[in-house]
Amino acid sequence: MIYLDNAATTQPLDIVIDKMMEVMKEDYGNPSSYHKMGLDAENHIKEASNFFARQLQCSPEEIVYTSGGTESNNMAIIGTALAYKRSGMRIITSKIEHDSVSQAFRFLEEEGFEVIYLDVDTNGYIDKEELSSSINDQTSLVSIMHVNNELGTIQNIEEIGRTIKNKNKNTFFHVDAIQSFAKVPINRRKSQIDLLSISGHKIYGPKGVGLLYKNKNLLTRPLIHGGGQQRGYRSGTENVAGIVGMHIAAREIISDFDKYTNELYSLKEGLANGIINNIEDTYINGPKVKDGAPHILNIGFKDIKSEVLLHALESSNIYVSSGSACSTNRQAYSQSLKSIGRNKEELDEAIRFSLGINNKESDIDQTILVLEKTVPMLRKVLRPGGKRR
Amino acid sequence: MIYLDNAATTQPLDIVIDKMMEVMKEDYGNPSSYHKMGLDAENHIKEASNFFARQLQCSPEEIVYTSGGTESNNMAIIGTALAYKRSGMRIITSKIEHDSVSQAFRFLEEEGFEVIYLDVDTNGYIDKEELSSSINDQTSLVSIMHVNNELGTIQNIEEIGRTIKNKNKNTFFHVDAIQSFAKVPINRRKSQIDLLSISGHKIYGPKGVGLLYKNKNLLTRPLIHGGGQQRGYRSGTENVAGIVGMHIAAREIISDFDKYTNELYSLKEGLANGIINNIEDTYINGPKVKDGAPHILNIGFKDIKSEVLLHALESSNIYVSSGSACSTNRQAYSQSLKSIGRNKEELDEAIRFSLGINNKESDIDQTILVLEKTVPMLRKVLRPGGKRR
Repeated sequence: MIYLDNAATTQPLDIVIDKMMEVMKEDYGNPSSYHKMGLDAENHIKEASNFFARQLQCSPEEIVYTSGGTESNNMAIIGTALAYKRSGMRIITSKIEHDSVSQAFRFLEEEGFEVIYLDVDTNGYIDKEELSSSINDQTSLVSIMHVNNELGTIQNIEEIGRTIKNKNKNTFFHVDAIQSFAKVPINRRKSQIDLLSISGHKIYGPKGVGLLYKNKNLLTRPLIHGGGQQRGYRSGTENVAGIVGMHIAAREIISDFDKYTNELYSLKEGLANGIINNIEDTYINGPKVKDGAPHILNIGFKDIKSEVLLHALESSNIYVSSGSACSTNRQAYSQSLKSIGRNKEELDEAIRFSLGINNKESDIDQTILVLEKTVPMLRKVLRPGGKRR
Repeated sequence: MIYLDNAATTQPLDIVIDKMMEVMKEDYGNPSSYHKMGLDAENHIKEASNFFARQLQCSPEEIVYTSGGTESNNMAIIGTALAYKRSGMRIITSKIEHDSVSQAFRFLEEEGFEVIYLDVDTNGYIDKEELSSSINDQTSLVSIMHVNNELGTIQNIEEIGRTIKNKNKNTFFHVDAIQSFAKVPINRRKSQIDLLSISGHKIYGPKGVGLLYKNKNLLTRPLIHGGGQQRGYRSGTENVAGIVGMHIAAREIISDFDKYTNELYSLKEGLANGIINNIEDTYINGPKVKDGAPHILNIGFKDIKSEVLLHALESSNIYVSSGSACSTNRQAYSQSLKSIGRNKEELDEAIRFSLGINNKESDIDQTILVLEKTVPMLRKVLRPGGKRR
């Protein structure tokens, strides 16, 4: 089995699973309980918060745990926009955000907010001039993703942070770092980020857990009310084992960050070259290999519908994605591909290969081999000149 | 170690942990992915939904997975009240609800809703006459918990459902069943329940997962927006391992429901009699042993502050709760105890013993033994007549 859908979700590390099992078996207390079982559970959360605070150059009290990236993004965007409604109703994002960002903005639009959706260029980069001129004194929030989940485009968040704060120092900056944390360096402080979202299952941790870094001077409105856990920002008994799992995963990956990053870029380059050089009528969607994130490669195969190629690869036990898997099975065109100027045919023929630390060179070789056979065969059948059954 | 805080949280069953581990290791795909790895993950969710649908006499499409009981309650209450704002702004609950219900109502009150908080009698039961007369044609929602988490009071939800629907058939009925599911029989259909909340970690499953049964004719407004998972009601990649864990836990407990229930009642009776008969100046808060839930026993120890007794028991490795653990460490008086008419002194001296399937008769004997020694000793020190240091 060759799993090349690591941007959709990753396999949790063995050490993550083992540690989660241990916590569930032994330290199963409720962190809010007054007795030792409660304290033991709480200590696991504190250790995780200390770790993430070091990574994000913030204080542990600025880490809020959530049920995943989608909730983190919602909490950051809806929570902040509603809390600062009185300071302004103009909020800004880009046209290539993940659904968990763009749908939160759509919701706020229905609530009466003015939303500016920034354009991107042919590689998926936003334009700082356009960003700057969109910000006015009524702008409470700008939300820009760090790494695009479909194209791998890495926004220059330092420059974006500077642009925002130069224009309006009261505008908060949210970064969806779900595809970048533990994969691409982030300097939270230098980038002047006020809110930052992370998901556990994208970094070899468990599903069902995420976190939001939230600047302590920023008072978001909670989405979920109750027992007042996490300083009231997110009520509900904390998912202790999940938090531990996300912590261990991040720790493991970050401790070997350079090694993993180099390996992923090398695999990605091999895959891109193997496809582009050996299979005709193929092209990369998004930036050049080295400019994009190490784990995401989006390639168009002319005249082959991505769904057909996906299932053809599946029959060889190779798992890839057509567009973003992080949404339901409804067939919708990729907003990211549309925004970089791809036409209707091109939207239909994009395959996302996303690499993970478990992938080996032999996986890449095998994938190229299968594509070299499958693509011409499918074209023969599917192309107008070819014979159709 | 004697863990008597099972209403705060339970130890996940070994089979739950093993199955979760297996899912994380092998079926780690994203349920939204089109390929086999996605389908395998999705099938785990479908199996769980089929199981819960059978338990709740509903269709699998009426099960929505959440991050836990708090989110389920919030989604039911806030989601429904906001969606049906135009049909009416009067919503009803009781004075003894869990924070995740009462704080959701407080939020709606700030949003302009008229909230009726129903009184309870000295055993914690609501009054059907008061309920009926509170409902008018502007009432979109009534939310009543099935089993009270502090007193163990079991509301007659069949009678409550009938009362609501007789008065206004358009009023939706939400039941917080977090302390009752898999512990007390629930006839969802006969009780005319439209929304019902369940939490994984209260029934020997994992933390970080819960579910909401939602009548398919009811259109709640989502709290969390994004990829449109779960028919748009709850976006975000599903916590597959967590859902499996909750499913296995519920299946195991329910398959031996009568055995577990009888054992718990027997332990509860032993503990109650042991304390009330052998230790003077003690009294039960809430209904008689057999009338209350099998796992919750709340006892007042005259002239001993619950915090002191809690820590005294802790030093003998016996873990109990003073009030509800499902809230932060802030010291607030129990709303449930206040509402059944307990005075200030009595609020201070209540201990909740909550039993679980791991407890043995010897745990109960040992706890009574320790209390028989500890309580008179503490009273000697703490009572006005006694010597204080």
